[in-house]
Amino acid sequence: MSDSELLALQVDHIRTLQHRYEEALASQGYDSLLISSGAAPMRYADDQGWVFHGYGPFVHWTGLVDQEFSWLLIRPDQKPVLWLFQPVDFWHANPEFPEEPWHQLVDIRFIPQREIPAIDEAGKMAVIGDPAYLGDVAGEHNPSALLEAVEETRVRKTPYEIACMARANALAVKGHRAARDAFLAGESEFGISLAYQQATGQREAESPYHSIIGLNEHAGTLHYQYYDVDAPSSSRSLLIDAGVRFRGYSSDITRTTAAPGENRFAALIHGLDQLQKRLCEMVAPGVAYVDIHRKTHEGIAALLIAAGIVQGLDEQTLVSEGVTRAFFPHGIGHFLGVQVHDVAGKRTPSPDDAPFLRLTRTLEPGMVVTIEPGLYIIPSLLDPVLEGPLANHFNRPVIEELRGCGGIRIEDNVVVTEDGHRNLTRELAA
Amino acid sequence: MSDSELLALQVDHIRTLQHRYEEALASQGYDSLLISSGAAPMRYADDQGWVFHGYGPFVHWTGLVDQEFSWLLIRPDQKPVLWLFQPVDFWHANPEFPEEPWHQLVDIRFIPQREIPAIDEAGKMAVIGDPAYLGDVAGEHNPSALLEAVEETRVRKTPYEIACMARANALAVKGHRAARDAFLAGESEFGISLAYQQATGQREAESPYHSIIGLNEHAGTLHYQYYDVDAPSSSRSLLIDAGVRFRGYSSDITRTTAAPGENRFAALIHGLDQLQKRLCEMVAPGVAYVDIHRKTHEGIAALLIAAGIVQGLDEQTLVSEGVTRAFFPHGIGHFLGVQVHDVAGKRTPSPDDAPFLRLTRTLEPGMVVTIEPGLYIIPSLLDPVLEGPLANHFNRPVIEELRGCGGIRIEDNVVVTEDGHRNLTRELAA
Repeated sequence: MSDSELLALQVDHIRTLQHRYEEALASQGYDSLLISSGAAPMRYADDQGWVFHGYGPFVHWTGLVDQEFSWLLIRPDQKPVLWLFQPVDFWHANPEFPEEPWHQLVDIRFIPQREIPAIDEAGKMAVIGDPAYLGDVAGEHNPSALLEAVEETRVRKTPYEIACMARANALAVKGHRAARDAFLAGESEFGISLAYQQATGQREAESPYHSIIGLNEHAGTLHYQYYDVDAPSSSRSLLIDAGVRFRGYSSDITRTTAAPGENRFAALIHGLDQLQKRLCEMVAPGVAYVDIHRKTHEGIAALLIAAGIVQGLDEQTLVSEGVTRAFFPHGIGHFLGVQVHDVAGKRTPSPDDAPFLRLTRTLEPGMVVTIEPGLYIIPSLLDPVLEGPLANHFNRPVIEELRGCGGIRIEDNVVVTEDGHRNLTRELAA
Repeated sequence: MSDSELLALQVDHIRTLQHRYEEALASQGYDSLLISSGAAPMRYADDQGWVFHGYGPFVHWTGLVDQEFSWLLIRPDQKPVLWLFQPVDFWHANPEFPEEPWHQLVDIRFIPQREIPAIDEAGKMAVIGDPAYLGDVAGEHNPSALLEAVEETRVRKTPYEIACMARANALAVKGHRAARDAFLAGESEFGISLAYQQATGQREAESPYHSIIGLNEHAGTLHYQYYDVDAPSSSRSLLIDAGVRFRGYSSDITRTTAAPGENRFAALIHGLDQLQKRLCEMVAPGVAYVDIHRKTHEGIAALLIAAGIVQGLDEQTLVSEGVTRAFFPHGIGHFLGVQVHDVAGKRTPSPDDAPFLRLTRTLEPGMVVTIEPGLYIIPSLLDPVLEGPLANHFNRPVIEELRGCGGIRIEDNVVVTEDGHRNLTRELAA
């Protein structure tokens, strides 16, 4: 898709949001909605702050992730008013704001101060955003029922949003290829992170979430958050979970690579990759997402048996006895959007057999989800099982061999379409 | 200094702190002090957090910048008790905690939960730290007079702290050399930031402050916070203000480089460098830091005349009429320590002629300060002067030529010694 096509889609996106937000306001009895962009806090008792990542509803409308102290007013049948904070400031540069077609649908005003000018004719107004930056703006602050209705406007992505996430995938896939090459060249976790940044043109502070880059055992810590500067004496495996933000929208991709010669681990990656593709095939309107999660456990069970990790137990037993959960403890995925774990996924609680599942809804067209099965050797989860009543059924030499490789996760970003799905990650990747 | 010498110094450091904190507690009438490490907040309405940078007093004692939800109890004549949060957590890795000599002076206890165990025999206890993480711990929370006394314990650095800052300087100097090479090779701001990270082995999230990397006009924005991914068509100048954290302690160094052929700008850099060295020579016990700031304005005035930027006005007039302030609007520097703008620098307010000066004290042995004069072409400050009553005294063609180079800042980290100073940056750099 060309840039101009993308920008034309954004105009439609704004129109759609105007309609959806009008409905949300009417349903909750408000005449208008004021959205605060907020700002990044300072570190406690320090004068250093963090890099800002915009408030969801503000980014949903504007795509502007770095605009602090700015405001957006939504009213039925009127142009939204966008107050952009652009101080005369020789300390900091203002964010760039090149002219784009969507600006014609919005009344844009630049303000040199952090406070919003007085608002007239807003009727019964709701104000949403970080309370730390709302000050004494008139209106009802963060009413929960309206917040829920506003979150719901973000669930079914517009064609513009999907196009942005496709771009975010294309950029991240470049990074993943560079990361794999750096791993095979013997780089450290730190070196791989630089290669990923170089290939994506995205600095660490701008990434939608902390990129997880784990070599060997570190691949078994689900959200491993450090980067060793020194490469291990032998690099056996790489797990990298990293995305890119494009016009506010995230990608969230995981790939696992075995070093040459790690044949058993490579075969397990291949098996999980096959399973992951089958799970992606399940994505379609009307499917309960939790069913994909449950199907994952069946697939992990089959894989454990096929790989010779477990012997003499059937798939059903491996699931019901919690063995698969020791190898695959997290949920199969989540909503994806302007936030990496996008909102409104859990209108009902997670079921008992999937306590960490972040999405419990039935799939509808326009939803974008991740599909991310994993298989790990996590000592704190696996060791109790290895010492439990099923102890004799495990092939310990194989598990010991795999322990040094940490684990596997394979994650794509998948759109629910009218009649099935579109895999934003695989349509690009080798 | 060898690692083992450094670690031996740390033992002395802990003993010194015990003594200083006992005095602070006695002076304010407390029997004990509980310090909370705190934690990094989540982004508002999101489940993504920031990378933690420890609370000053906790880092002052332990050097542990990444320990969240941990606690330190100080009591007279007793070993400090350090509760380190180390959960059984398959999501995240715990920070590494290799055995070191200072551990013998501290009673270290690992806790799997975020809350502190009940404390006995603490008498009248003060509790300091981010209120968001103090919960309902008994004791007086953040009493201001005690906080001030505790800050004062950080003003005169111990030999251990100075040794750490020397290491932080050595690492950053490597990064600055790599950044200069990348600039001369035509890299973008983004590429230069990767080169700096590669050379220092420090990822962006760990740096003591946002590294400022500005090419051309961007060098004139004092805290320029973006990195362009594309190099300009012609790279004329680089300003990089970047440090490294070593065992909690910061360096904070700025260098400016002219591209080959930018002879006028290069000459100005040379002139400011000579001035900066003279200012560093002023650092000694008994010197009012604001006098160094004022001497900077005199030096900038002389430089403006020598460079032919201003004609027909004497130095005194340039200072008194605010011309030097248009070229050099910030303060000459600040305290440096576990925070880049370290605490307790402004027990008295900044004088009217130095509104942004962060340090207004008389220098004492053990203080560590930055000396960072600058000379910039900042349109919002300079254009009014160019159109004011002194308009005819400015050499506009020269100013226009320099405008595209943005500005110059040169910054070293300087220790006040018993009889003068030690420049931690220049003792290493070419």
